[in-house]
Amino acid sequence: MRRIKLTVAYEGTDYCGWQVQPNGTSVQSVLDRALSTWLGEEIRTIGASRTDAGVHALGNVAVFDTEARMPGEKFAYALNTRLPEDIRIQESAEVPSEFHPRFTKTIKTYEYKILNRRFPDPLRRRDSFFWYGSLDLEKMKEAALCIEGTHDFRSFAAAGGNTFENGGSTVRTVYKTELWNENDMIHFRITGNGFLYNMVRIIAGTLLEVGKGNLKPQDIPAIIEARDRSKAGPTARACGLTLLGIRYPEWE
Amino acid sequence: MRRIKLTVAYEGTDYCGWQVQPNGTSVQSVLDRALSTWLGEEIRTIGASRTDAGVHALGNVAVFDTEARMPGEKFAYALNTRLPEDIRIQESAEVPSEFHPRFTKTIKTYEYKILNRRFPDPLRRRDSFFWYGSLDLEKMKEAALCIEGTHDFRSFAAAGGNTFENGGSTVRTVYKTELWNENDMIHFRITGNGFLYNMVRIIAGTLLEVGKGNLKPQDIPAIIEARDRSKAGPTARACGLTLLGIRYPEWE
Repeated sequence: MRRIKLTVAYEGTDYCGWQVQPNGTSVQSVLDRALSTWLGEEIRTIGASRTDAGVHALGNVAVFDTEARMPGEKFAYALNTRLPEDIRIQESAEVPSEFHPRFTKTIKTYEYKILNRRFPDPLRRRDSFFWYGSLDLEKMKEAALCIEGTHDFRSFAAAGGNTFENGGSTVRTVYKTELWNENDMIHFRITGNGFLYNMVRIIAGTLLEVGKGNLKPQDIPAIIEARDRSKAGPTARACGLTLLGIRYPEWE
Repeated sequence: MRRIKLTVAYEGTDYCGWQVQPNGTSVQSVLDRALSTWLGEEIRTIGASRTDAGVHALGNVAVFDTEARMPGEKFAYALNTRLPEDIRIQESAEVPSEFHPRFTKTIKTYEYKILNRRFPDPLRRRDSFFWYGSLDLEKMKEAALCIEGTHDFRSFAAAGGNTFENGGSTVRTVYKTELWNENDMIHFRITGNGFLYNMVRIIAGTLLEVGKGNLKPQDIPAIIEARDRSKAGPTARACGLTLLGIRYPEWE
């Protein structure tokens, strides 16, 4: 058996998320079906990040085991011809069979996009959150910097999902945040060693509250300190979030 | 009766084009139906640019006449709540009843986008044309400059459409072309006083041939000179084209 690693991009709009669910079509189920039909084996991928319904990815990671003899890098090309156009493999490679995309140290980068203009733009409605009101970008930048570092992020975690995996610790390290605009699109990028359930969306929702003036940048440390979900802002909509990529420092 | 001017943005993917057609849903028909139902009058908009199936717009222009008494700028807000999310009014204003969006001198700007990378990006598949092969950007820039000026653009015109309107002259003026890349996205922007049927897509298709090395920038003047459609490149796919905006210099 060989283990193949896939870097997977998808538009999440029409999916119930990464993971196989009783209702709705998941990215994983489409991938598993395409692989199984093509290779004539029962394939079940293991995904690195179980993104939510409506969340997008440029670089989610999945692995699967197969008897197929094709060179690792060729899987991407062949598999893409068997996938719907909202899912596209960006890279494939053979990896050691011990490589597990989830139970391995990772560095993940997410981006949340806010389209800030008077009226929605139909061409950018699918991968950004639209907000017509004015936003104080400088204050949002300041607040984003307060998120950096190793903290107990319980205030920014929804119940459920992976929040209480790994022995229940809600401590995570955010290595870097960046917030900038290109014309009317605000980009918020965050890199860390792991994210709790809905954590990036709750951080984005909190930054939006800062932008609107409902919270101040100086409030962020106390919100972290409180370890209380009700102190942070609302969960920002899924459509604005994209998992940009995942690195595995131990395997580089 | 008052005349209202609308600036209309749409993602053209799911439409048979701007104009009402016997088969398929057009942007205009959706707009006319929403306006007629809302205002309780039989509304028929007049569009400035009858974009093709699959072509997008950020700033197409349409007018309609109504008895409604609401301030001109309010129509945009109210109409947007009655439109599908792939069509969004960007601005509305009352204009003199002599204003005709098509039989008036215009300056139109189009953009053609080429996503040039190894694999398609599902998040950018709808408003760009994907090309995996290498493209010589410098040569494409040189070729784009040769398009500027007042020329008989018959080599870049498909039969049909508006090509032989206005007494059949195929002379047009291209005021400006720009070609640049932002990472893996190549942008080609062109501004002129009018464009023949499929003209921007044929120019984009010709620039792609230059980028691939099948044509040289120095070939462009002879292609223009030939006044023969078969000398230019193929018509580039509709999905990459967006009508950015239309100006009416006589009305500014």
